[in-house]
Amino acid sequence: MIKNTKVNAAILIIGNEILSGRTKDTNTSTLATWLNSIGVKVEEVRIVPDVEKMIIDTLNVLRKNYDYVFTSGGIGPTHDDITAESVSKTFGLKYEIHKEAFKILEAYYKPGEFNEGRQKMVMMPENAELILNPTSGAPGFSIENVFCLPGVPSILKSMLGGLKNKIVGGEPILSQTISLRTVESEIANSLTKVQDNNKDVEIGSYPFFHAGKLGVSIVLRSENQSKIDECNLQILKFVSEKKIEIVDR
Amino acid sequence: MIKNTKVNAAILIIGNEILSGRTKDTNTSTLATWLNSIGVKVEEVRIVPDVEKMIIDTLNVLRKNYDYVFTSGGIGPTHDDITAESVSKTFGLKYEIHKEAFKILEAYYKPGEFNEGRQKMVMMPENAELILNPTSGAPGFSIENVFCLPGVPSILKSMLGGLKNKIVGGEPILSQTISLRTVESEIANSLTKVQDNNKDVEIGSYPFFHAGKLGVSIVLRSENQSKIDECNLQILKFVSEKKIEIVDR
Repeated sequence: MIKNTKVNAAILIIGNEILSGRTKDTNTSTLATWLNSIGVKVEEVRIVPDVEKMIIDTLNVLRKNYDYVFTSGGIGPTHDDITAESVSKTFGLKYEIHKEAFKILEAYYKPGEFNEGRQKMVMMPENAELILNPTSGAPGFSIENVFCLPGVPSILKSMLGGLKNKIVGGEPILSQTISLRTVESEIANSLTKVQDNNKDVEIGSYPFFHAGKLGVSIVLRSENQSKIDECNLQILKFVSEKKIEIVDR
Repeated sequence: MIKNTKVNAAILIIGNEILSGRTKDTNTSTLATWLNSIGVKVEEVRIVPDVEKMIIDTLNVLRKNYDYVFTSGGIGPTHDDITAESVSKTFGLKYEIHKEAFKILEAYYKPGEFNEGRQKMVMMPENAELILNPTSGAPGFSIENVFCLPGVPSILKSMLGGLKNKIVGGEPILSQTISLRTVESEIANSLTKVQDNNKDVEIGSYPFFHAGKLGVSIVLRSENQSKIDECNLQILKFVSEKKIEIVDR
């Protein structure tokens, strides 16, 4: 059965702090895990600095190549937050006060606290659709297939629920992990044969070192559980023949 | 004083496990931190799946746009490790047994243990230069300005020492962090003025939530300590005027 419902996405992480090594990106993992669960496969990630031309050029490639693009970072109130203006330029749209966002933040802050710095956060591409922020008020936004989210991991995470109705995914991507007390070279040939026999299942092999012991996790990914099951059986067969121990991980 | 010694780099992370969200990438942070210390600025990161065409196309862009490219992942013994073959194709080089790498692994393993799976790890682009691996034997390699490292974080880390003599950096990129008990919107305008007055210092503003309290870390980055110091003074001036508390972070 061939599915014609593959939906893909790219993630664009915007921020010097990731490129400098100061901050480890966790938003890719959060977004990718959530997108998988609604049937969207992340096929590329790019991390670029807070540089307008880089953001625009990269967005123009990604939005044409993928069904959805998710950006993270650069929508706060400071000088280095240039995502909203860059997205406006990408689409040739005015960068202006978003009236609905203005109302949300005006109501969110105490009287007098909705200052100039915070008002920058309601500047968006014209006619942007808002992505509500249940944590700290300031909304994200989307234009066509580009969805702009903040860089702070806990805030980004809290906004995914509000995105769900805006993203149309395909079949959820299922995965199954088999962890073995072995090393990759012991199973490489057998695993290649299983992959050759199961072209529709993506088989990954990942060495790990846990509690002082080496092991390998084999990860099977597909939209089709019965194909994963078949693949799993073929792996368990050679694992049993080679007398390899299966472990928890 | 204008430095003509800016050296830049891109990082290419290869692996479905990062794109699926299963594994969080930490190699970007490790590599970027180390590269900064030897005067190489990471200007772009891309994460691509274990797909030959994606790897080749991406490498061809990155190796032309940046002084150095570092790849991570895909050089192990299993079917999903396709980096060495993809790099060979990128450069139009034969993919063949690397004699020196063969000798290293033959000596590394006990007699009889250097099996077919492991022998795949000595297949490299012809005339590749080896990057020694003090942790698990199997070397990485470089061709021209492309340096290929493994995906396992502890192994990658252990190989950086051996890379040092092969990378010619510029001035080390210095950084200083000032952490404040405030919110970004309170300091946004003042910070913009400081950035406008100090174009050669990259000023980043990063909200944090630590031990139940909000704060903002301001990060100053430049090759020039005196420019950082000057910028720092200007920030401390408005911080004092606004009676904002400086905190440890």
